[in-house]
Amino acid sequence: MDLREKALEYHINGKIEINVKKPCQTADDLSLAYTPGVAVPCKEIEANPELAYKYTNKGNLVAVISDGTAVLGLGDIGAVSGKPVMEGKSVLFKKFANVDAFDIELDEKDPDKIVEICKALAPTFGGINLEDICAPKCFYIEKKLQESVNIPVMHDDQHGTAMITTAGLINALEITGKKASDVKVVVSGSGAAGIACARMYRNLGVKHITMVDSKGVIHSGRTDLNAEKKEFVIDTEARTLGDAMKGADMFLGLSKAGVVSKEMVASMAPNPIIFALANPNPEITPEDALSVRDDIMMGTGRSDYPNQVNNVLGFPFIFRGALDVRATKITENMKMAAAKALAQLAKEEVPSSVRDAYNGKEIKFGKDYIIPKPFDPRVLLVVAPAVAEAAVNDGVSLVKEFDKAAYVEQLKKLQ
Amino acid sequence: MDLREKALEYHINGKIEINVKKPCQTADDLSLAYTPGVAVPCKEIEANPELAYKYTNKGNLVAVISDGTAVLGLGDIGAVSGKPVMEGKSVLFKKFANVDAFDIELDEKDPDKIVEICKALAPTFGGINLEDICAPKCFYIEKKLQESVNIPVMHDDQHGTAMITTAGLINALEITGKKASDVKVVVSGSGAAGIACARMYRNLGVKHITMVDSKGVIHSGRTDLNAEKKEFVIDTEARTLGDAMKGADMFLGLSKAGVVSKEMVASMAPNPIIFALANPNPEITPEDALSVRDDIMMGTGRSDYPNQVNNVLGFPFIFRGALDVRATKITENMKMAAAKALAQLAKEEVPSSVRDAYNGKEIKFGKDYIIPKPFDPRVLLVVAPAVAEAAVNDGVSLVKEFDKAAYVEQLKKLQ
Repeated sequence: MDLREKALEYHINGKIEINVKKPCQTADDLSLAYTPGVAVPCKEIEANPELAYKYTNKGNLVAVISDGTAVLGLGDIGAVSGKPVMEGKSVLFKKFANVDAFDIELDEKDPDKIVEICKALAPTFGGINLEDICAPKCFYIEKKLQESVNIPVMHDDQHGTAMITTAGLINALEITGKKASDVKVVVSGSGAAGIACARMYRNLGVKHITMVDSKGVIHSGRTDLNAEKKEFVIDTEARTLGDAMKGADMFLGLSKAGVVSKEMVASMAPNPIIFALANPNPEITPEDALSVRDDIMMGTGRSDYPNQVNNVLGFPFIFRGALDVRATKITENMKMAAAKALAQLAKEEVPSSVRDAYNGKEIKFGKDYIIPKPFDPRVLLVVAPAVAEAAVNDGVSLVKEFDKAAYVEQLKKLQ
Repeated sequence: MDLREKALEYHINGKIEINVKKPCQTADDLSLAYTPGVAVPCKEIEANPELAYKYTNKGNLVAVISDGTAVLGLGDIGAVSGKPVMEGKSVLFKKFANVDAFDIELDEKDPDKIVEICKALAPTFGGINLEDICAPKCFYIEKKLQESVNIPVMHDDQHGTAMITTAGLINALEITGKKASDVKVVVSGSGAAGIACARMYRNLGVKHITMVDSKGVIHSGRTDLNAEKKEFVIDTEARTLGDAMKGADMFLGLSKAGVVSKEMVASMAPNPIIFALANPNPEITPEDALSVRDDIMMGTGRSDYPNQVNNVLGFPFIFRGALDVRATKITENMKMAAAKALAQLAKEEVPSSVRDAYNGKEIKFGKDYIIPKPFDPRVLLVVAPAVAEAAVNDGVSLVKEFDKAAYVEQLKKLQ
C-alpha cells in the first residue's frame, strides 16, 4: 500500500474515542456515576465552582478548536474537512503528555462569533488550543478570547513554531558566538506563525528583522499591511527576498517550496541558520543549500532531515504545565521558558533509548542537532516544569505552592 | 463511607477521558495520524463531506449539551456545576450502547444563542443530545436547532421519559383491556417531560388528558399559559389535582414528592396506572398507594421499587439506531417504535442473566413488570433496530439499505 491508501485505512472511523475511566459494572457503580450519587459533586461545585477541577475531568481537558480556514498547507477547506487534523492533535496531546484533548470543528467564520462560542464552551475545559485559523483573524480571536476567560488559550500555529525555532536560534547563537542583538533575521511568510516567531525573536533580543510576504519586503512605503505586519515595518532599500537575504544570519521560511535560491544562500552571513519550514517541501532543500556552503545550521519541518521543527515539541507540554498549576493564561515568559528548556535539553547527552528510536545513530549537540528530537521522552520532563514554574513566577497560576523536583517525579509516572 | 463520601471519591478527576484508538507507537504511525498522512482524508472529506462519517469519529459521536438551567432536581445550578451529570450521561451512552458521547456545558442561557452555538458545533458530531435545559425554552431550542442541522437532535428530558412511560402505558392497556382512546390521563407537572409525555400519549391515541401545573389544572379559563401548555387546555370544572384524579385511569407525576394523597388514589378508576416519577421521593410512595388498593400498576424513578422509569432505557439506543442509519432527525415514529419495542420486550421471557442482576427473583410480565429492566442487555438489541427501521421507513435515513436481522447480529458484537 502507498501512503495514500495506508492513511485512508488508518483513518477509518477516526482516531479518538470517549472512554469511561471509573468502574461501572454494577447498579451501585451507576448510582454513583449518575443519580442519585451524581447530585453530590454537582452541589459541591455549585457552592464552589473551583471544585470542577476536582470532581470533573476539566483539569485535564483541552479543547482543540478550529474553523477550518487554514488547515495544514491545504488552506480554507471547511470545518468538517479539518477534523482528521484536529483528531490527530488530540492523539498527540494524549500520547506525549497524557492530556485529554477533544476536537471541535466550528461551522462559523466570523471572529467575534468564534470568540463568543469559545467563551460559552469554556466551563467544560481546562484550556483551549486554537488551531488552523487563518491570519489575521487568529490574532484577534486569541487575544479577545483570552481576555474573556480564565483558562489558558493558545493558538498553536503561532506559538508552537515560535518556541521551537527560538530554541534553535538560542543554540545557534551559542555555537556561533553571535549575539541576538546583532543578528539579521529574514522571515519569509507573514501569517500566523511568521508574526509570532518575529515577536518571540524580539523578546529574545533580536533587533534586526526583515519580514517578507507574498508581495515582497514589508517596508515603510507599503500601504497594504494589516496591524500585525505594521508592527514589523522597517525603513529599507530591500524590496525582494533576494535583497533581504544579503548578509542575513538567519532565514526563517514559513512560505512555500522553492522560494530560496542557491544564490540567496551564498549571499548570507557566515554560519547562517536556515529554517526552511514549508511543508511538505521546504523553501530550499538541505541538499541544495549545503551544495553551496557547509557552514549552515539547517532545519526543516520534515523528519527525514536534521533539526526537525515539529510542533509536537511544544503544545502537549505547554498545556501539561499550564493545566498542572492551573494557569489562567499562557504568558510570554511561559513560552520563553519552554524555548529555553528545549534549547538546554539539546545540549545534554542523549540517552541510548532516544538514539535507538532514530536508527541508533549518534546524536550530539552541534549544527545537525540544535533542537531536541520529537520522540525524546525527556522533553515532557523539562518543558512542562519550565512552563509551570514560569506561570507561578508570573503570578498567573491558581496553584501557588510549586515544588519543581516533585513535579518532575510526578511527570515521570505518566511515561 | 456514606453515599455522599462515596460519590465524591468516585468523582475525583471526573469520569470520562479521551483515548487514542489507533496504533501510535512509531514515527510511521504518527506520520499517518498527523502530517503528512492526515492530509489524505482531509482532502477526501473536502471533496465529499459525507466521508467525514467514514474517516473521522463523527459517525459514533454524540454531543451532550446543557446550559445547566434544569439539572436533575437541582434546578438552575449553572453550566459547570452540571458537568458531573453530563459526564455521567456520557458514561451511560458508552456503557449501554458503545456510543462516544462528549459533554459540553454552555455558559450561555439565551435560546437563540444556544441554537447558534450548537449549529456551529454540529460538524464535529453525529448527533446532539440536549440535556437539562429548562422549559419552555427547551422546546424552542430543540425545534430551531433540528431545523438548521442535518444530524439528529433530541432533548432527552422530554422524550426519554415519554418513550418509557408510553411503553408502560401500552402494556398496562393490554393487561387491563382498556383502550387508549377511552382512558383518562392526569399529568402532574407541565415542564419538559410532562409536555412531551402528553404529546406522545396523544400520538398513541389517548384523547382525555388533564395537565396540572403548580397553579392547578390547565383549563380554558387560565391566562398564564405558555404555548406548550396551551396545547393541552381543556374545558373542565376540575381545578385541583384532587379534582382531576377522580376516575382517572393513569396518573403521571413529574412534579414533587407527596402531592398525591391516599384519598386521590382511592378516587381513581379500577386498575389504575400510577407513575410517580419525582426524584428521589415520588409523588406518593408505593407503600402508601398500595395500602389503599391493590389493583394499581405502579412505577417510580427508583431502582428499589418495581417498574423503574429510567431514561437509560431510551437515549443510548435511540442514538445508536439513529447513528447507524445516519438519520438526519428523530421522528415521532422513531420514538414510538422505541416505546413499542420496549413494551414488547417486557412481554418476553426474561433470561436468567437478567434475573441474576436483580437478586435472582422471578421477573414476569404483569403489573409489577410492565417496563424492561435497565440492565437487560436485550434492550439494545430491540430498541436500536426498531429506531433504525423507523428512520428508514420515514425516509430520514441516509443509509437506505437496511437489513434488520443483520443489524441485530452486528449489535450483539458490541456486548
